[in-house]
Amino acid sequence: MKTIENSNILIVGLGLIGGSYARALNKHHMIPMGEDIDEETMKYALEHHMIDSNFLSLEEKIQRADFIILGLYPSQVVPWIEHYQPYMKEGTLITDVTGVKRRITYQVEQILRKDVEFIASHPMAGKETSGILHASADLFQKANFIITPTLHSSKDSIEWMKQFALLLGCKYIEILTPEQHDEIIGFLSQLPHAIAVALMNSHEAENYIKYTGDSFRDLTRIAKVNEALWSELFISNQDYLISEIDQFIIELEKLKQDIKENRITDLKEKFQTSKAKRKLFDKI
Amino acid sequence: MKTIENSNILIVGLGLIGGSYARALNKHHMIPMGEDIDEETMKYALEHHMIDSNFLSLEEKIQRADFIILGLYPSQVVPWIEHYQPYMKEGTLITDVTGVKRRITYQVEQILRKDVEFIASHPMAGKETSGILHASADLFQKANFIITPTLHSSKDSIEWMKQFALLLGCKYIEILTPEQHDEIIGFLSQLPHAIAVALMNSHEAENYIKYTGDSFRDLTRIAKVNEALWSELFISNQDYLISEIDQFIIELEKLKQDIKENRITDLKEKFQTSKAKRKLFDKI
Repeated sequence: MKTIENSNILIVGLGLIGGSYARALNKHHMIPMGEDIDEETMKYALEHHMIDSNFLSLEEKIQRADFIILGLYPSQVVPWIEHYQPYMKEGTLITDVTGVKRRITYQVEQILRKDVEFIASHPMAGKETSGILHASADLFQKANFIITPTLHSSKDSIEWMKQFALLLGCKYIEILTPEQHDEIIGFLSQLPHAIAVALMNSHEAENYIKYTGDSFRDLTRIAKVNEALWSELFISNQDYLISEIDQFIIELEKLKQDIKENRITDLKEKFQTSKAKRKLFDKI
Repeated sequence: MKTIENSNILIVGLGLIGGSYARALNKHHMIPMGEDIDEETMKYALEHHMIDSNFLSLEEKIQRADFIILGLYPSQVVPWIEHYQPYMKEGTLITDVTGVKRRITYQVEQILRKDVEFIASHPMAGKETSGILHASADLFQKANFIITPTLHSSKDSIEWMKQFALLLGCKYIEILTPEQHDEIIGFLSQLPHAIAVALMNSHEAENYIKYTGDSFRDLTRIAKVNEALWSELFISNQDYLISEIDQFIIELEKLKQDIKENRITDLKEKFQTSKAKRKLFDKI
C-alpha cells in the first residue's frame, strides 16, 4: 500500500476544514490537488500554494487520486460520491469531515462501487469562523480525531486514517461506530451549540453589552454558527440531540429547584461535582 | 476631598478580587493596608509587598482608612460593617465587590452610621480560580465595572468609584440601581454558571473526555465554580435567576421543536439572529 507521502491526495471543498487539511499537508511538504466550487476560494488556494496548480478537470483529478477527502456539508457527500464515483480508479479511499455519521455512512455503503472504499472520519476541531481565509495548519494540534468504520471497512483504511490524523497533529485518535459517534457528538458538540444559540436568543442583546463579563462571552462564542451547516447537522441527528436537550433541561430544573427551596448544601454538592468533572476535560 | 492617590486604603479580604485590587494599586505605586483571616494569605501579601507591612491591629487600620474595600462573600458584608463601623472615622467610604446588590445595599443602609457612606460596586471580571495566588493587576483590563448607588449616595462617592474603576483599568463604567444590577447579572453571569454546571452534570464525564472539542470545553470552563461563593450568589438572587432559567428553557424548547419538526428555515433564522447578536459582544 502507498504511504500518505507518496499518494495523490484530492481535497474537495476548501473551506475551514478542507483548507486546514491542505495547510497541514503543506506543512509536511505535500501539495494536494484541490477543488472548490467557489472561484475566489480556488484562486486563494492556488495563490497561496495550498493546492497543486495543475490544470486538470475535476474528473481528471479524481482519476489520479488515491485518497479523496470530501470537505463538504453532510447533505452533499452522498450526491457527490454518486455522481463522481465512475471516475475513480480501483482502490481509491474516500473520507469526509462531517459532524454526523449514521445517515452518510449507510447511504454511501448502499451506492458505492465495490472496488473503492469509504471510511468516515471527524476531526474534533473548529472555529466560530468559516472559509479558506481562516484555514490553518495548526487547527488540529492536540485535537481529538474520530474514525467511524463499519463492518465493511478494511484494516488498511482504518490504519491509513490513523496515520493521516497523526500527520494533521491530532493527539487522541478514537474508533467509534457511527451510532456511538452521533450520540457522543449530540452531547459534546451539538448540545453546547443549541445552548449557546438559545442563551443568545433569550434576550435582546443591545441592553446587555456594557455589563457583560467573560463568562457570558465564553458561553456564547459558538452562537456565531454557520447556519447552513448547523441546521443540517442538527436535523440529521435530531433523535440523539433532542434526547440530550431533554436530559440537560432535567438537570437544569433540578438546579432550579435547589435554588428555589434554598437548598444550599445540595447546590454546593452539585458545584463540587461539576468542578471535579470539568477538571478531567482540561487539555493536557 | 482627598484623591485616591493620597488616601489611606484598606482592603479587607485578599482573595482573587481583593488581591487583584491590591496588585492594581501596586501597579500605580500605591500600597494599601490589607487584612485577611487566613494567615498564609497575609504572609503572601506581605512578602510580595502587596499590602503595607505596618503592624497595626485591624481596628487601627480601620481608624486610619479613608476608603475601605470589602473583598468578602455577600453574607459577610453586613455583619462585618455592623461589627467594625464603630472604629471608622467620619467620612469613610466603604465599597464591596460582590455579585449581588439588593439585599446587601438595603441592609447596610438600615444599620450604617450616618457619618460614613457605603456604595456598592461590582467589577465584571473573574477567573475559574480563587485566592490570592491567582490575583493579578491585569484582571480588570478593559473589563466592565458597575456602580449601584441608591438615593442616599453622594455625587462625590459615585465620582470616587468611577476614578477608582479607571485606575483598575476598567473600560466601561456603568451606573445601575441595585435591582437593575441583580436582574442583569441573573442573565449575564448567574444563568451561564447555572447552564455550565447543569451541562457538566448531565452525564458521567469519564466516557467523553477522549472525544471532546473546544466548544464543550469553552461552555463548561465556568463549571469550575467556587461552591461556597456561588451557592450564596444563586440563593441571594433566586427570584431573578429562576426567571432567567425559565426564559432560557422556553427558548431552548423552541429550538428543540424546530429540530423535531425539520423546520430548517426557522433553525437558520435562529442561528442568524444568535450570530448577529453575539458579534455585538466581542471585546473591542
